Amino acid sequence: MERSVFYISDGTAITAEVLGHAVLSQFPVDITSFTLPFVETETRAEAVCQQINDIYHRTGSRPLVFYSIVSPKIREIIHSSEGFCQDIVRSLVAPLQDELGMSPVHVANLTHGLTEHNLLKYDARIAAIDYTLAHDDGISLRNLDQAQVILLGVSRCGKTPTSLYLAMQFGIRAANYPFTADDMDNLQLPPALKAHQHKLFGLTINPDRLAAIREGRRENSRYASMRQCRLELAEVEALYRKNQIRYLNTTNHSVEEIATKILDTLGLSRRMY
Amino acid sequence: MERSVFYISDGTAITAEVLGHAVLSQFPVDITSFTLPFVETETRAEAVCQQINDIYHRTGSRPLVFYSIVSPKIREIIHSSEGFCQDIVRSLVAPLQDELGMSPVHVANLTHGLTEHNLLKYDARIAAIDYTLAHDDGISLRNLDQAQVILLGVSRCGKTPTSLYLAMQFGIRAANYPFTADDMDNLQLPPALKAHQHKLFGLTINPDRLAAIREGRRENSRYASMRQCRLELAEVEALYRKNQIRYLNTTNHSVEEIATKILDTLGLSRRMY
Repeated sequence: MERSVFYISDGTAITAEVLGHAVLSQFPVDITSFTLPFVETETRAEAVCQQINDIYHRTGSRPLVFYSIVSPKIREIIHSSEGFCQDIVRSLVAPLQDELGMSPVHVANLTHGLTEHNLLKYDARIAAIDYTLAHDDGISLRNLDQAQVILLGVSRCGKTPTSLYLAMQFGIRAANYPFTADDMDNLQLPPALKAHQHKLFGLTINPDRLAAIREGRRENSRYASMRQCRLELAEVEALYRKNQIRYLNTTNHSVEEIATKILDTLGLSRRMY
Repeated sequence: MERSVFYISDGTAITAEVLGHAVLSQFPVDITSFTLPFVETETRAEAVCQQINDIYHRTGSRPLVFYSIVSPKIREIIHSSEGFCQDIVRSLVAPLQDELGMSPVHVANLTHGLTEHNLLKYDARIAAIDYTLAHDDGISLRNLDQAQVILLGVSRCGKTPTSLYLAMQFGIRAANYPFTADDMDNLQLPPALKAHQHKLFGLTINPDRLAAIREGRRENSRYASMRQCRLELAEVEALYRKNQIRYLNTTNHSVEEIATKILDTLGLSRRMY
């Protein structure tokens, strides 16, 4: 079964996408998706409407439409299409209105827009990204007192994407430090890191997955061999245990899950952007 | 008015957070938020329930609860709390069930979980992050044929966070290239970039905002002076126009908005992760 899906918003449409995706992942249906951000004028809304109707008439199956639009007039135009329309925010706003005893304010694009109100928080987020890039892959062990998390692990176990996600999504200053093949003879926790024990978090991964990832980068190398991968992982896991560093196997987890588990484990609070 | 808000999920709780945040941004209410991911057992759910009820009894105002949980049993426990509970996914799943004529499958954490089904797509995302880091700040002008976007702009106008967001959120391989003070005497588009005209996208920013950002990095420097910022921005904007490069002023936009506008302008499709 195949369906067209539209994610429509007067802002970035990221919220509509994320939620629509969550909802649709519960149904065994093949999706062709169209994301239409910044639908801010009636003219644009009418064109979108036409696009939805055209697909309906051409394919015979009704497109699913997830939308989030603040202007009542534009909302009405989208809703007048022949798609199966769901207002993702409003279905939650209406009950809340009663509970809070107040009316919603109609300001477009409040979720991901930049206002005076959230500018300071936004600058802190950019600062977290800067910090994280400057402390990627052990580039710098200075200013580690400013880190909120220091990730440890062998090459290609997920340190960099996880650090960047922590910074980007949650405004966390995340340093990361790699253990290399050369470290393996006598693996020790560097003194510069030992001083920050409570911020350390180890990553590990299954040897076969690691070998496959490394093989993609350096074919037939010692670096990518199962033997080397097994050795490195056994050594770092022993180091984590010996130093009582909390750690996680990343093999079956996305960066979202890894990042969330780290914050949860270290008791760090998540900022919203 | 102040309220406690809980975002609860059997997965990362990112969807609950993003949507709950979108909903609450429409109300003038002060929020103390608690995000509780990985609520996967009845014991944990009961503890969460207790936490919600404790806050209610202590503060006298009912916590707002946005949750997304697949297991009916665990969902029921959360729902039995004294908070004002809204199931963010289910309110959209129910109507869809009729429209699609099929039942939802109850698999926990489908949104951000890693399965065999999405592993290839996930690897492409990690590859996009790798590519973007290797082509940050003009580090490498090789392999630009593999870039999907090449961002241009002066120092601190938002190139790096935007590139990383494009890679992280949408799996886009985004290179970026900085114009420096030294380039300004005779500003030209480097031949290596000219060959990729259709992928180029310029960023600009208001001089006073740029000066404020640079001041935070190098106080009282020429680099951060209004005069220098004005000069650099005038030059690059002239270059964009001369070379017919599409561009955007980032001053009042978040990385989400900038990234989304770039994809929309260049006609690139967004992947969902």
